[in-house]
Amino acid sequence: MKRAFEDFKPGHLGTFGPHHVSREDIIEFATEFDPQPMHLDEEAASRTILKGLSGSGWHMCALWMRMAWDGFISGIASMGAPGVEEVKWVSPLRPGDDLMLDVEVLDTRESKSMPDIGFVHLKQEMRNASGQVLMFSTIKIMVLRRHAVEAM
Amino acid sequence: MKRAFEDFKPGHLGTFGPHHVSREDIIEFATEFDPQPMHLDEEAASRTILKGLSGSGWHMCALWMRMAWDGFISGIASMGAPGVEEVKWVSPLRPGDDLMLDVEVLDTRESKSMPDIGFVHLKQEMRNASGQVLMFSTIKIMVLRRHAVEAM
Repeated sequence: MKRAFEDFKPGHLGTFGPHHVSREDIIEFATEFDPQPMHLDEEAASRTILKGLSGSGWHMCALWMRMAWDGFISGIASMGAPGVEEVKWVSPLRPGDDLMLDVEVLDTRESKSMPDIGFVHLKQEMRNASGQVLMFSTIKIMVLRRHAVEAM
Repeated sequence: MKRAFEDFKPGHLGTFGPHHVSREDIIEFATEFDPQPMHLDEEAASRTILKGLSGSGWHMCALWMRMAWDGFISGIASMGAPGVEEVKWVSPLRPGDDLMLDVEVLDTRESKSMPDIGFVHLKQEMRNASGQVLMFSTIKIMVLRRHAVEAM
């Protein structure tokens, strides 16, 4: 049975990864979604404030989702999220990075309007192999409450 | 010459699109980054609160970036963004949607610490062909100031 809203308590939820990101991954995502020179071309990227080829911030967000899915979301009765509270891109994603993800539960609350749903407020920190923080973000995900999971 | 920070004034910046999103686009993105059942499988998706196959919210964010690049970012001296302030996923992205993007400049300010850079505070609203809002978000992008663009 999938984990329910009631299984979440404030505190450290887990550390997930590593997830390897290649130069090809960075260029493929950028070509489709974010073709800014700093995400496509080493020479052009060296003249930007990122000082070298770096992945799109939106690529980091998509990778966060993938790492969160593999790490814990696949095992919970998740109903998605109504949005994202905040994303900070702190350091550049570089070709060859092995990403780690730290997830913390900030707080939880039952939905007032949806009796089967609770909100789990998460903070994520994405790091590279040397421990440098690349991105952090906060999001409220919707998780089925225990009675709804048991009725599935 | 690319448009500089000083070219931005509060008010409507533009309406961009349409950008077509196919069922294959939705499934390809979800398979790589967000393999939740509601983004992959029609039958499983019909039992979720989204009531049918829908694109990942992170896919909408990536599509926002692509539409913004095609619409205006490719023509300005953009230096990227330090993060995202807020994203709200209001209605589901559906297979076959033709997306439109409305962009408004909320305000602008020169950077205190980076003399070549100004921040342009944008609000974006993504709509489908029937005018239904799918997503809105606010972000501060960094744009080179005129003297820096002229010195390039």
